[in-house]
Amino acid sequence: MAQQGSLAEKFSRFGEHWRPRVIACLNGQEVKIVKVQGEFPWHLHETEDEFFLVWKGRFRVEFRDRIVELDAGDFIVVPRGVEHRTCADQEAEVLLFEPAAVRNTGNVVDPVYTAPGGVAI
Amino acid sequence: MAQQGSLAEKFSRFGEHWRPRVIACLNGQEVKIVKVQGEFPWHLHETEDEFFLVWKGRFRVEFRDRIVELDAGDFIVVPRGVEHRTCADQEAEVLLFEPAAVRNTGNVVDPVYTAPGGVAI
Repeated sequence: MAQQGSLAEKFSRFGEHWRPRVIACLNGQEVKIVKVQGEFPWHLHETEDEFFLVWKGRFRVEFRDRIVELDAGDFIVVPRGVEHRTCADQEAEVLLFEPAAVRNTGNVVDPVYTAPGGVAI
Repeated sequence: MAQQGSLAEKFSRFGEHWRPRVIACLNGQEVKIVKVQGEFPWHLHETEDEFFLVWKGRFRVEFRDRIVELDAGDFIVVPRGVEHRTCADQEAEVLLFEPAAVRNTGNVVDPVYTAPGGVAI
């Protein structure tokens, strides 16, 4: 992996939604980028916190008791063990920082949304 | 720590250069923001890789054998053990991912540039 580059160029190289690409690995963690549109399944990660930073568009993190709306430049940490789903009415581009080899759907295996891990770009 | 917010709002709350602020903690890692201008001392981190993402302006990572110029939206991982210094001719705003409690000047203690760690914003 090059471990360096341009986010705009990296985002330009794929089109699918909900399929994270790894752009950097460090200290057992991965930095990923993902394009999102629609509603992701409800899930949680038992042992990993997740950091989301919106790069482009609007993005929403729904918890069972609240909804957080995020615009470009907004970030949030979803703590381990907390059920959530991510949504976007229009396509949005999001950066993630989380431990390597986290399954995107956490405790759920979904035939559509569970994505292969460790796909570098 | 709120663990969520706006990068623009967080950057607006301080002015000093080379004084990282922690905006999120997760999985033993920290997400930090820093304003930079001028030349930082040469240093290395024995056991930590560092991820830099330029949020605003131009930023430069100098290694002993090459120089990497970064514009807004560009990122780089500086591997552990590799001597480097960071520079910016004009003020730039940078996001960092790295393990918690890394000293900003690594193996060097500098009376001007070594910053207190763990300062949240």
